[in-house]
Amino acid sequence: MSYIRDGAEIYRRSFATIRAEADLAGIPADVAQVAVRMIHACGQVDLVRDLAWSPGVVAAARAALRAGAPILTDAHMVAAGVTRRRLPADNEVVCTLRDPAVPDLAARLGTTRSAAALALWGDRLAGAVVAIGNAPTALFHLLDLVAAGAPRPAAVLGVPVGFIGAAESKDALAANTLGLEYLVVRGRRGGSAMTAAALNALASESER
Amino acid sequence: MSYIRDGAEIYRRSFATIRAEADLAGIPADVAQVAVRMIHACGQVDLVRDLAWSPGVVAAARAALRAGAPILTDAHMVAAGVTRRRLPADNEVVCTLRDPAVPDLAARLGTTRSAAALALWGDRLAGAVVAIGNAPTALFHLLDLVAAGAPRPAAVLGVPVGFIGAAESKDALAANTLGLEYLVVRGRRGGSAMTAAALNALASESER
Repeated sequence: MSYIRDGAEIYRRSFATIRAEADLAGIPADVAQVAVRMIHACGQVDLVRDLAWSPGVVAAARAALRAGAPILTDAHMVAAGVTRRRLPADNEVVCTLRDPAVPDLAARLGTTRSAAALALWGDRLAGAVVAIGNAPTALFHLLDLVAAGAPRPAAVLGVPVGFIGAAESKDALAANTLGLEYLVVRGRRGGSAMTAAALNALASESER
Repeated sequence: MSYIRDGAEIYRRSFATIRAEADLAGIPADVAQVAVRMIHACGQVDLVRDLAWSPGVVAAARAALRAGAPILTDAHMVAAGVTRRRLPADNEVVCTLRDPAVPDLAARLGTTRSAAALALWGDRLAGAVVAIGNAPTALFHLLDLVAAGAPRPAAVLGVPVGFIGAAESKDALAANTLGLEYLVVRGRRGGSAMTAAALNALASESER
């Protein structure tokens, strides 16, 4: 069968197509870099219209990663999608969802396992890059924790997906008065692939 | 903050919303079960319009999994997204992308690492459930391999994502005259999250 087999060329043409088709006017250059990679992960250039961000989010996340901050995520698929060689400081990538303590914690807190797992992030939350790529309850719980005095992360990617609570949890992050730097995909869209893509864009400016 | 914290209730309402909004008329019941879970993973009920399948694909994949067939995938994120407790026969989930032999193989074959990694599937291809959730080149290469006489998998999920080759590779799978049972998402959409969701739907009929 006839098709392009050169990985570098596929990347080049992919990003060129995205930059030609996506309406990136009016998006700051650093956010656009992240947007392009998220579009690459979902195949949809209209993702742009659902993006919302705080002006300092990309700079804050990049500075945190360069300084060695961990990446904390609610989903093992997100952790699996982070390209380790792109990380500037061999940063730790943490997902506590399968910790044996989580089911009991969830029962005790009366919430989902995804939300309860955040309790195990502990002090690592201070200055971390948090990426919620699956569960709206995890994002709601994060906002509750920070409002209650938990250490503040350097930046929060809010990209949970789905039909119950996803849009609302991301609206709540974008409206936060806690001083949280954020990037969200409004509405139902989201998920681990575009969340990992955003992390990979924050980790390195290389498009390859 | 006020939101639904009961995981079972979130699942129930999510699937009810999908079944209320998605146009599943005209889709066989077994394919619809898979479609609902794929929609759950991407947040988009219009995914239905891009689905194409061979009539026997779900039955073939389920029979293979019950008989202990492995799942072979091009992407570690897909492998990470398979819920092991859903698998009917503790099936092996194989991704060979990070095998140390892959870079040399890719250079020798003049293709991407994702495509070259398929060479390491070997005899496991016979009767397997193959899930291509990332790289169009991997799907093209699979079709070339089977056309050249490689063992035939029981079913192929063709869900690569992106702008270069994704739509074409999935059209080629859907048009195959090799007797391959298939399920594809036509166009640019696809990716590891909806691919893993499809595998989880094939593995078990439980919506939870």
